[in-house]
Amino acid sequence: MFVTFEGPEGSGKSTVAKYLYQRFFNEGKSVILTREPGGTPIAEEIRNVILDKNNIQMDPITEALLYAASRRQHLVEKVWPALKENKLVLCDRFLDSSLAYQGGARDLGVEKVLNINLAATEGFFPDLTLYFDINPELGLNRIKKNVTREVNRLDLEKLEFHQKVRKTFLFLAEQYKDRYVIIDASKPLEEVETLAYNTIIKRLKK
Amino acid sequence: MFVTFEGPEGSGKSTVAKYLYQRFFNEGKSVILTREPGGTPIAEEIRNVILDKNNIQMDPITEALLYAASRRQHLVEKVWPALKENKLVLCDRFLDSSLAYQGGARDLGVEKVLNINLAATEGFFPDLTLYFDINPELGLNRIKKNVTREVNRLDLEKLEFHQKVRKTFLFLAEQYKDRYVIIDASKPLEEVETLAYNTIIKRLKK
Repeated sequence: MFVTFEGPEGSGKSTVAKYLYQRFFNEGKSVILTREPGGTPIAEEIRNVILDKNNIQMDPITEALLYAASRRQHLVEKVWPALKENKLVLCDRFLDSSLAYQGGARDLGVEKVLNINLAATEGFFPDLTLYFDINPELGLNRIKKNVTREVNRLDLEKLEFHQKVRKTFLFLAEQYKDRYVIIDASKPLEEVETLAYNTIIKRLKK
Repeated sequence: MFVTFEGPEGSGKSTVAKYLYQRFFNEGKSVILTREPGGTPIAEEIRNVILDKNNIQMDPITEALLYAASRRQHLVEKVWPALKENKLVLCDRFLDSSLAYQGGARDLGVEKVLNINLAATEGFFPDLTLYFDINPELGLNRIKKNVTREVNRLDLEKLEFHQKVRKTFLFLAEQYKDRYVIIDASKPLEEVETLAYNTIIKRLKK
């Protein structure tokens, strides 16, 4: 089963993903935790081109194609082989992050970014997407308080940007009702972890 | 006007493109000759990932996405600005090479590669595509005789591969009748150059 963790920074999704990985591992489940580019050398190289600070001339569609290329390679080399071995694959951010950030919050539009990604994924979608929903103001405050975590470029975007991200995630949750589960990430961490755990267990039993 | 030069290696297309550039330049036309990645740093970086000999694990769809990303950046930074200034843009290989080589001769299929590229080009096509048609055996013989030209990886593919490339180009010429002009590249070079020149002049007058 392929489970993706989506949500804005400060929603706690990465912390929850790590917790769940550890818990499933301790239970003896065959599980991996990954995130793009996932240590696959080609996907890493592609990411380096995207993140190269000198590449300020980069067109948004070029960027979307590069993300899709990196995603493709991560799927082919890591995710699909693990699923073939019946592993539970937990993935911190996936397709929906591209749709929400590049499609929704930037100017590209969800449909355009989705089309590019469908070429990469050949129509493959997560079995389950846990969306950690949080008011952007609360999420950003959490990040500011977390002194051990480096503030990145996206954190510094205007509040309006983060509101557009949230709006797009909620739109996607409506579009993809079958695979989306919205988790209220404003609740205490332990409660969120339990909710996420129970959601996956329930889905695994199906 | 955007003119692309397509055809297999050994068809003489690059020689003709250089000749035409020089001739139009001498006539005082505002003209540029380019080819992907066209000296645009981001497109160059993307090409380096594609051509990195260590990347033997690269999935064909990843490769197609990277070519499309490089194409996009070349369009945005070089081709479209030149067209905006009403320049005549001659481009040695473009979209159709991806369709013929990756779509036709490899296993991806023309439609899949076209879809990826349409995301990159946003439906932009050449005004005119000169396709230099030649029997692959003749083309490969020419390359072997040309000792100054380094033999590349594609030259060494089996004859069958090159026949599939040609078949796909001829299919595309049929699909895109309006923009395609087939030039018999087995004729003597001077004749081919004159044919190509006259074709562009005729199209410019339209």
